[in-house]
Amino acid sequence: MRTTTGWQAAGPSRMRRTSLRRRDLRADDIALRVDFCGVCHTDLHALSDHEQHTEAPLVPGHEFTGVVTGTGRGVTAFSVGDPVAVGNIVDSCGVCAMCEAGQENFCHSFPTLTYGGTDRQDGSTTLGGYSREYVVREAFAYPLPAGLDPAAAAPLMCAGITVWEPLRALGVGPGTRVGVVGLGGLGHLAVKMAVALGATTTVISRTRDKSDDARELGAHDLIASSDTRRMGAARDTFDVVLDTVSVPHDLAPCLQLVAMDGTLSLLGYLGPVTVEAMHLLVGRKKLSSGGSGGRPATAEMLRFCADNGITADVEVLPSSQVDTAIDRLRRNDVRYRFVLDLSDLD
Amino acid sequence: MRTTTGWQAAGPSRMRRTSLRRRDLRADDIALRVDFCGVCHTDLHALSDHEQHTEAPLVPGHEFTGVVTGTGRGVTAFSVGDPVAVGNIVDSCGVCAMCEAGQENFCHSFPTLTYGGTDRQDGSTTLGGYSREYVVREAFAYPLPAGLDPAAAAPLMCAGITVWEPLRALGVGPGTRVGVVGLGGLGHLAVKMAVALGATTTVISRTRDKSDDARELGAHDLIASSDTRRMGAARDTFDVVLDTVSVPHDLAPCLQLVAMDGTLSLLGYLGPVTVEAMHLLVGRKKLSSGGSGGRPATAEMLRFCADNGITADVEVLPSSQVDTAIDRLRRNDVRYRFVLDLSDLD
Repeated sequence: MRTTTGWQAAGPSRMRRTSLRRRDLRADDIALRVDFCGVCHTDLHALSDHEQHTEAPLVPGHEFTGVVTGTGRGVTAFSVGDPVAVGNIVDSCGVCAMCEAGQENFCHSFPTLTYGGTDRQDGSTTLGGYSREYVVREAFAYPLPAGLDPAAAAPLMCAGITVWEPLRALGVGPGTRVGVVGLGGLGHLAVKMAVALGATTTVISRTRDKSDDARELGAHDLIASSDTRRMGAARDTFDVVLDTVSVPHDLAPCLQLVAMDGTLSLLGYLGPVTVEAMHLLVGRKKLSSGGSGGRPATAEMLRFCADNGITADVEVLPSSQVDTAIDRLRRNDVRYRFVLDLSDLD
Repeated sequence: MRTTTGWQAAGPSRMRRTSLRRRDLRADDIALRVDFCGVCHTDLHALSDHEQHTEAPLVPGHEFTGVVTGTGRGVTAFSVGDPVAVGNIVDSCGVCAMCEAGQENFCHSFPTLTYGGTDRQDGSTTLGGYSREYVVREAFAYPLPAGLDPAAAAPLMCAGITVWEPLRALGVGPGTRVGVVGLGGLGHLAVKMAVALGATTTVISRTRDKSDDARELGAHDLIASSDTRRMGAARDTFDVVLDTVSVPHDLAPCLQLVAMDGTLSLLGYLGPVTVEAMHLLVGRKKLSSGGSGGRPATAEMLRFCADNGITADVEVLPSSQVDTAIDRLRRNDVRYRFVLDLSDLD
C-alpha cells in the first residue's frame, strides 16, 4: 500500500488531518498528486449523513485536478507529469447497456463513487480527493486540457458535467431560451456553458442582488423570483429551465416558466419531488433530472470548456481551511465554488 | 332559445332526464343532433364533485358524434346533414400564443370546456353531450370521416386525442418501443394507435387476464405488473410509457420501464404526483402528462383513425341506462368504453 495525507470527517463540519492509504497501482491504474479539489454540496450531505463510529472513514472530494505521478504497467493514455482531472465516478461494470453506451454514470450495477463507494476489486471503501494523492483507473481519469487553470477547472468535474449533460441532451444551442434557477456552483457554470452554446440565457434568482454577476457571467437577463410581474410575463418562455437549487422547494413557479414542449431539469435537489400533473399537461412540459455524466460526455465537456475558456469562478483556500469552506458553503457564502489547495499537505 | 332533452346530474351515480335549453345559433355556430356520446372517467369525477344545490346543472358528456341540423349564417365548413364530432373543448381565446400555435387546449385564458365551462359570450355554464342536441362554434366541431362508425368513433374525441397527442409529440413511429400501462378506455386506443404508427407495443396490466385482449388489439406482448421477474427484465426498455391508470399509484415501477432518454407520460391520473428525482436522473428519463389536444391534432387524429380503421371498442347502451354505465365504469367493468345511444330521447 501507498500512504498519503488527507482530510477525514471528524463531525458534520469538522475535518481532521490524517494519514491515508492508497492501493498499490494495478496494471490500469494511475496515481496522481491532487493539487486542487472543489467543495461540492454533495460533500456537505455526506458529512451530515456520516456516522463517525459505525462506518468506514469519510474523505470527501470528487472534483479534482492534479498531475500524474505514477502509471500501472498497462497504462497507455497517461505519462508521469501529465495534467489530469477526476470526477465523481471512478469505475463501472463496463459491460451493461449503459456502460456500452458511454453512460457509465447510469451503470446498471451502479458506478463506483469517487468517495464512499466500494472498490469493485478489493471491496474497500473509496476515499476522495481531499487528500494529496489519489489512485484511479486510467479510464476514469481525463487529460486536463492545456489552458485551463487547474484550480478553476476542478469544479468542472462535478458541477460542470452535471450542467453540461442536460444542456447537451436537451439540444441547447443558438436560439434556445435557457433559464437557470439559482446562481451558485452549478448555476454559474450553467450560465457560462449555455451562453457559449449560443443560447439566450436568463438567471432566475430570489432577488436582484446577483444581477451584475449574472451579466458578467454572460447572462442576458436576471429575473427575481419574488417579482411576480416579471415571473408572470416570463411564463411559458424558456425551452429549458435548469433548476440548480439544492434544497426542497416548490417546483410550480419553475414549471410555469417552461415553454411549450420544454423541459424543467432538476440538478440541485435530488430527493422526492411533487408536481401537479396538470402543470406538466398544460404546455406539454417535461420534468427531468440530472447529475454527473458518462466518460465521453465528460471528455467532450472538458474540450468545450478549453475551446471556450470556461472554468469555474472559484475561491481557493489552503486545505487547512477546509472547515471554513464547509461552514461558508452551508451558508451559501461563496461566489461560486470553493477549491482546496492541497499543497499544504506536503 | 332552443329546447332539447338530456340527462342531468341528480346525484353522484344518478341522472335525471330533463328538458334543457340551447342558445340560438350565432353566426359561427352549428347545431347538431347528438347520436352517440362516450362515458369518460372525467364524467365520474364531475358527478362526484358536483354539489346539487349550489351549482349550475351538470350535464356531462364531452366525446360525441352526430349530424348537423342547423348552421349559423356565417358557417362555411358544415352543411345540414353532415356527420360531425365534438370533443372536450368548445372555444378558446383565439389570440394567445397557444391558440395561434393550434394548441387551443392550452389557451392562456383557459379553453371553454364542453360541459361545466363558461361560455365566452354570455357567461352561461356549458351543458354536455348527454343530450339530444348541442350547439357549438363550427371551429370546434370536426367532420366525422366516412367509414368511421359514429358510435365507436365518439370516444376518439376525448380518449383518442388524449393518447394521440403524446404519441405524436414524442415521435412514436416504426421501431419505437411503447409501453401502455392500463388497458381501459385510454389504454386500448393507445395500443391501436401505437401499433398503427409502427411501434412495438406492450401492455402493462395488473395481471395476465387481458393477454388475449391485448393481442387482439395488436399489442406484441403483455407484462403483468405483479410479475417481478418480467418487470425487472423489462427495465429500461421502453422509449415511451403511456400511463393510463386513472387513480393515484406508485410511479416508480412505471419509470423503471422507461429507456435511456425516454418519457413516462401520465394520461390517466392528473392530480399531484411524487417521483424520486434519482429515478428520473438515472437514465435521463422524462416525466410528462397529457390530456386533450388542439384543433389541428384532433383533425389529424380523425384522419389517421379513418385511414387505419381505428375506433374504440365500445359497449353501446340506450341513454336511459346511463346510471348503469356510470356504475359499471366506476367498477372498471367495461371493455373498453361505454357509449350512450341518445336516440331514445326523441
